[in-house]
Amino acid sequence: MVEFETSAQSNPSGLVSQGGLDPARLLPADPAVRAVAQSLVDAVAELPIISPHGHVPATMLAEDIPFDNPTELFITQDHYLTRLLHADGVDLGDLGVGGAEVDPREAWQLVASRWHLFAGTATGHWMREALSGVFGITDALAPESADSIYDRIDAALTTAEFRPRALFRRFGMDVLATTDDPLDDLAAHRRLQRDGYRVVPTFRPDRFLDPDHPEFTGAVAGLTSSTPATFTGYLAALAQRRQHFIASGAVSTDHGVREPFTCNLSDGEAETLFQRALRGAADAADAHLFRGHMLLQMARMSVEDGLVMTLHPGVHRNHSPATLHRHGPDTGHDIPIPVTFVEGLRPLLERYGLEKDFHLVLFTIDETTYSREIAPLAGFYPSVFIGSPWWFLDAPDAIARFRAAVTETAGFYRGSGFVDDTRAFLSIPARHDTARRADAGYLARLVVEGRLSETDAHTVARDLVDRIPRKAFKL
Amino acid sequence: MVEFETSAQSNPSGLVSQGGLDPARLLPADPAVRAVAQSLVDAVAELPIISPHGHVPATMLAEDIPFDNPTELFITQDHYLTRLLHADGVDLGDLGVGGAEVDPREAWQLVASRWHLFAGTATGHWMREALSGVFGITDALAPESADSIYDRIDAALTTAEFRPRALFRRFGMDVLATTDDPLDDLAAHRRLQRDGYRVVPTFRPDRFLDPDHPEFTGAVAGLTSSTPATFTGYLAALAQRRQHFIASGAVSTDHGVREPFTCNLSDGEAETLFQRALRGAADAADAHLFRGHMLLQMARMSVEDGLVMTLHPGVHRNHSPATLHRHGPDTGHDIPIPVTFVEGLRPLLERYGLEKDFHLVLFTIDETTYSREIAPLAGFYPSVFIGSPWWFLDAPDAIARFRAAVTETAGFYRGSGFVDDTRAFLSIPARHDTARRADAGYLARLVVEGRLSETDAHTVARDLVDRIPRKAFKL
Amino acid sequence: MVEFETSAQSNPSGLVSQGGLDPARLLPADPAVRAVAQSLVDAVAELPIISPHGHVPATMLAEDIPFDNPTELFITQDHYLTRLLHADGVDLGDLGVGGAEVDPREAWQLVASRWHLFAGTATGHWMREALSGVFGITDALAPESADSIYDRIDAALTTAEFRPRALFRRFGMDVLATTDDPLDDLAAHRRLQRDGYRVVPTFRPDRFLDPDHPEFTGAVAGLTSSTPATFTGYLAALAQRRQHFIASGAVSTDHGVREPFTCNLSDGEAETLFQRALRGAADAADAHLFRGHMLLQMARMSVEDGLVMTLHPGVHRNHSPATLHRHGPDTGHDIPIPVTFVEGLRPLLERYGLEKDFHLVLFTIDETTYSREIAPLAGFYPSVFIGSPWWFLDAPDAIARFRAAVTETAGFYRGSGFVDDTRAFLSIPARHDTARRADAGYLARLVVEGRLSETDAHTVARDLVDRIPRKAFKL
Repeated sequence: MVEFETSAQSNPSGLVSQGGLDPARLLPADPAVRAVAQSLVDAVAELPIISPHGHVPATMLAEDIPFDNPTELFITQDHYLTRLLHADGVDLGDLGVGGAEVDPREAWQLVASRWHLFAGTATGHWMREALSGVFGITDALAPESADSIYDRIDAALTTAEFRPRALFRRFGMDVLATTDDPLDDLAAHRRLQRDGYRVVPTFRPDRFLDPDHPEFTGAVAGLTSSTPATFTGYLAALAQRRQHFIASGAVSTDHGVREPFTCNLSDGEAETLFQRALRGAADAADAHLFRGHMLLQMARMSVEDGLVMTLHPGVHRNHSPATLHRHGPDTGHDIPIPVTFVEGLRPLLERYGLEKDFHLVLFTIDETTYSREIAPLAGFYPSVFIGSPWWFLDAPDAIARFRAAVTETAGFYRGSGFVDDTRAFLSIPARHDTARRADAGYLARLVVEGRLSETDAHTVARDLVDRIPRKAFKL
Repeated sequence: MVEFETSAQSNPSGLVSQGGLDPARLLPADPAVRAVAQSLVDAVAELPIISPHGHVPATMLAEDIPFDNPTELFITQDHYLTRLLHADGVDLGDLGVGGAEVDPREAWQLVASRWHLFAGTATGHWMREALSGVFGITDALAPESADSIYDRIDAALTTAEFRPRALFRRFGMDVLATTDDPLDDLAAHRRLQRDGYRVVPTFRPDRFLDPDHPEFTGAVAGLTSSTPATFTGYLAALAQRRQHFIASGAVSTDHGVREPFTCNLSDGEAETLFQRALRGAADAADAHLFRGHMLLQMARMSVEDGLVMTLHPGVHRNHSPATLHRHGPDTGHDIPIPVTFVEGLRPLLERYGLEKDFHLVLFTIDETTYSREIAPLAGFYPSVFIGSPWWFLDAPDAIARFRAAVTETAGFYRGSGFVDDTRAFLSIPARHDTARRADAGYLARLVVEGRLSETDAHTVARDLVDRIPRKAFKL
Repeated sequence: MVEFETSAQSNPSGLVSQGGLDPARLLPADPAVRAVAQSLVDAVAELPIISPHGHVPATMLAEDIPFDNPTELFITQDHYLTRLLHADGVDLGDLGVGGAEVDPREAWQLVASRWHLFAGTATGHWMREALSGVFGITDALAPESADSIYDRIDAALTTAEFRPRALFRRFGMDVLATTDDPLDDLAAHRRLQRDGYRVVPTFRPDRFLDPDHPEFTGAVAGLTSSTPATFTGYLAALAQRRQHFIASGAVSTDHGVREPFTCNLSDGEAETLFQRALRGAADAADAHLFRGHMLLQMARMSVEDGLVMTLHPGVHRNHSPATLHRHGPDTGHDIPIPVTFVEGLRPLLERYGLEKDFHLVLFTIDETTYSREIAPLAGFYPSVFIGSPWWFLDAPDAIARFRAAVTETAGFYRGSGFVDDTRAFLSIPARHDTARRADAGYLARLVVEGRLSETDAHTVARDLVDRIPRKAFKL
């Protein structure tokens, strides 16, 4: 176990101790429950990783680019980690965020000196798991150990076995989905597939569908060659890009929206709004309607072309304008907001909710929707699947809450399976291991409480990491 | 324990095992907590069932109609069960929903082949409990056992001891409340009472109070003989029907509303809205106000006639128009929505919240209101009682969350006692048993955590199944 | 343990048993977790109490006024207790609420006869702890023991060691913050500080900032000597009163608002709204904007003068007009409402969220905001701190939910430390003990689940009661 020394100025009382990974880590304390959970974990530990939604760059794998250094690998790109350091007063620039020049070893030391911040966090757990599981480092991260740990990682990164493709094999990855711009040529994916790596793209058209997005006009211009652009031409171009994704192995589209609002406009209304948006003349109400109409259009296209539709609503992006200005987007200040699905999705579900082979996976970071909306919707509509705990909720206790909130209504077989949703390639095994352990703990409790036989628990545990994600994502 | 074999096409990895009901089922895993919980369960296991709110048809008991067949009994009428099968791709018609003609044995086999869907669900638990507790069947439901199980149930249903009245006695039911239309003559209830069965009606006037209800105009026409109808006459007719219910043993009224909104209109405003509604000319705002005014009028009448008022808000009824059209209402697509009580009920509570002997029981399927609103309201207003977990929340883990959310603020004695709210007559013992076990688990934890003496826990456990529902429902 | 006899009319089945305080009370049941938790509790049990936010009257301590009698001490002032008795049908006047004349012994007996109401509640736990910990009384509170308990407390209260200052020392209080009106001269605080008691005031300007507050006009008139009052003069007067508080030891301001809404008006707009408000001509929208602007002004002043800003939003004050009229405010009918912070605080955080040394502590009684908003905000903004569970949520299970909801995202070091927020002086040790035990239980679970070393858990446990509140409140 990685332990922390609290930083001198803020935590002089900090102590340091040593330790390794606990084989029963994350499993419930009760001995009877833990024994069942351990047997479940052992049974699924070696099953391949299916990662149907995430943010690893395909080029990194296609070109098998060696990782730069420990800081680039573990810190700069991980906005879970940099955001909490920022909250503790660290300048994001000192961590290399947004392309800032930093001495990577100094940034690494900076993190080590504040490692107490991560006690009890999912980020701390993933880091500990990755250090141990990938690099065999079980020392406590602390100011005095930081240099040695840095050196060991750095040395490893120069070797062939720590190149991305080698790790892909070592991690036992069966399939990895990336997230991609509709205009991406997807050459990296096709190259990987030729080389025997199932790395598939995901169609993520947010900037094409939202008149309020700063890149909307440019994105649409890039999409449609015709001049002037028409709404019909725009829809056709989107459908065509989806075909290109399908041809390159894509199984799903992804939609990050503020609200899960949908509506169905007439062709004339849609055309009018579209032209207004292109002129930059759409007001807030126009943009709202246009987004709602386009989300419904995406569902329609999914019905037609079979791509699974995943929805990640409920985020206020870039909450701190000053941070956005200084360090760019995706720098830790996207903040969740309240969400409700039932009314907003009604127009979409009214049209497509009963369609054979339409799959709509609902993710949330507003836990209130688990038992109130998502499980009830997925327990009726054949098209609706329960997205696994996402973002801040992808953590052991949050996963336990999730299972308890949805299972009694919708069972296990209406879920998406685990989705790591990460750009931190090295954390992928740790994240899947965490989910498997959390699920094993939940299943084991049901067994000991006489609600599920141990045999059935084993079936469910295996299905959760294999059959269930394959069904939800049509893999 | 009933175990599942996953259906061939979707779960070829499924295993089957056998088992019986675990005597400690649903009790917490920790041995010390479990021992206390078991003693609490044992102490209340034989106490009579008080069922102050539910949907069993009184005629079935009055006429002691034999149950048709296992499918009609366990499947077709249970929209918890049919909805999850529908989500898995089963056509509701193939389960006999909405009066569709089906071969009951084929439908039974269909359910057995997908029984893995119900792993971990409340529905699965109730089915298992009913098969075992009522029919003595402990085999796993699976394709190969389905016919034999069907035959055993079917044979039992032809015998006198499986007629509704015999089961009513065998289940130890002290009182059973049904839910009834205000125009019901309640002959069935009076006949049952004459025969020594305490089966009481509940006044459910939803369609009479909501201008948006498709039957509103007809319902009002049936209620008021005077022509043209006046608001005053309408109120008087409602009050008179309530008297008819009281004379037939009713103790409560029930209100299923979308929002718990109340308001107080002047007589003139109410009359105007009423006439507009009867003409079909009420717009959304009119209907909203009228519903709010009528909910407050129902409270006023409760203050006058003593009927307990129960409120079940927060549901979007018939979310799927196509399903409504094909299979009718109550077919599994009512979906919960966010709810808040504090503002909406203020006008009602301002007038009647402190009234002696006024009882208002608040149910929710939005768990956020437990600790935020319902426990705080019931911990101040003598009239407000905390409704037990309802619908999707009537399940072991959800009950545990409920107790933890409300008790620290409002204790045990501001609750309604358990309410099964079911039309599945055979599941009633299982549901009450589940609630007793869940409450025992919670109480036992308090005991082991030194927060309640074991003696007091026994007092509370008994009061929860007897004194508390009798007080809340004036039984 | 204090046990209850259920009152004759409502709970004839009640039993009585005896008991003392369990040394492992509130700790988790699992033996392994409990052992670790016990060692953590033991390690922090003797650490001083830091109480950075509460409602104890400074005059009581300054003048060392003996407590009146057991009823005044434990019942009349405790609206947690009186509200639940009120819900059970007790007239608040019979408990002495709002200055009503009562025989204290009769009121005490009244409480004892209904003590079953408090089974499982936080209030019951605090009472039991205070009786035992402060007075050494471990008898069950019940009708037959009530007189004897009353007499023993009453006798103790006449002795020097039960005077407020003696108890302050005995409780091991390092610092106690009170809550004070901006116009308070703070003489009591200065006298206490001269005598060696660190009792510091808190600037609570609600009635000065809200045009809808019945005392707004008078409050502003008292604040500003200039005639006619100008917005600039009003701001300056507020800033000057803050300086007076700082000179008297204050470290924070406190804001009880309905919504956490902020906005930034121009000087002209603010002046216009201010004048309109003083004339009593501000409508709802005006008042809303003015409150939002003033909350942002309070943040600006905090940036300038360094006072920590604490925010307690989400309460509908005085929900029952009849009770307000008869018994006054703060009589148990303030009811929580849904809250969201992300949009409302954006204007404030946009300006001041990244300011060095600005501290904004967010409290909530809407648990949905813990994982969705507060932990994510505090995990990014250096200024935002997570307020400890407040009011109805300051209870063992609620604290456990709080820790599980925020820690995985924001760790332990973005919190405020425990805040008792109480006017019940004698309950302060019990409340801090409860929080320490609840935190120990959570930390111990992490240890046994292999998520934190026991050494680190000890560091965190100590920091939670010392370093963390000192940092958040600049003590």
